[in-house]
Amino acid sequence: MYSKAKWNENLSFTAELDGHTIELDTSIENGGKNLGPRPKGLMLTALLGCTGMDVASLMKKMKITVESFSLDCTTETTDEHPKVFKDIILNYYFTGDIEDRVSDIIKAIKLSQEKYCGVSAMLKKNSKIIVKLFINNKEIEYPYNI
Amino acid sequence: MYSKAKWNENLSFTAELDGHTIELDTSIENGGKNLGPRPKGLMLTALLGCTGMDVASLMKKMKITVESFSLDCTTETTDEHPKVFKDIILNYYFTGDIEDRVSDIIKAIKLSQEKYCGVSAMLKKNSKIIVKLFINNKEIEYPYNI
Repeated sequence: MYSKAKWNENLSFTAELDGHTIELDTSIENGGKNLGPRPKGLMLTALLGCTGMDVASLMKKMKITVESFSLDCTTETTDEHPKVFKDIILNYYFTGDIEDRVSDIIKAIKLSQEKYCGVSAMLKKNSKIIVKLFINNKEIEYPYNI
Repeated sequence: MYSKAKWNENLSFTAELDGHTIELDTSIENGGKNLGPRPKGLMLTALLGCTGMDVASLMKKMKITVESFSLDCTTETTDEHPKVFKDIILNYYFTGDIEDRVSDIIKAIKLSQEKYCGVSAMLKKNSKIIVKLFINNKEIEYPYNI
C-alpha cells in the first residue's frame, strides 16, 4: 500500500493514491485556500468507505436489497497536541422495504465492526466507535455498543 | 469533524469531507471500476498531509527555504482479518540549497512526529512509523527512530 504527496505552497499538497489525485489544504480561516479537505478528516472518510464496502458486500451475499444506504460520522479532537480523535459516532442509514431484514442488517454491521473493517480496528486503538443505525429514518437499537 | 458517504452501486461510494467530494471504489481486479482510491489507503494520505502541513508550517517559522518538499509512505497489511497496517515507512524528500539547515529540518520532522501530528499519534497506536529523510537525493540519518 502506497501514497505520496507533494507540497505546492503555503499548506497546500497534492497527494496520489491508487492512481487518483487528492488535493489537501487548510481552511480559509486558517490561512489556506480550501483547495481540498483537511488531512485528519480523511481518516473519517476512510472509516466510512471501509465499513461501507464491508456492509454493501455482506448485503449482497445476504440478498438484502435496499433503496439507499449511506453513512456519516462525527468526532471531536482533543485540545492538547497531538490533537487526536475523541469518541467517534458512526451512523448507518438504510431505506427500503427491509423491515423484515433488520436483524440481518445488524449482523452485517457487527461483522464489519468486529471482524472485517481494518480502519475501524485501527481507529479503535485510539477512539471508542459508537454505532447508530437508522432504518427508514427511524433509529434501531444496535445491541453491540458497549 | 464530519464526513459522510453514499453508496452508489457495487462497492462504489461518493464521500464528502469539508465540502469536497471524494469517490471511493475497489480495484478492477476485485470487481470494482477503480472510480476512486481504496478507503484504507486514505489513512496513509491523511498521514502525509498531516505531517506535511506540520513540516511546511515549521519550515516557514524557521525560515527554511526549499526548492521542493514531498513525502511518501508504504506499508503492508496483516494477512488475517481485520487487515490492519504493519510498520509504516514514511519518507521525507527535500531539495534545495539547504545543506546547512539539515539539523533544523530534522528538528521540524521530530516536532511533527513527536508533538503535533495527530494522524501519526493515532496510527502509532497500531503501527511503528519508521522515518527516513532524503536531502538532495541523499539519505540523511534521522536519529529518532527507535
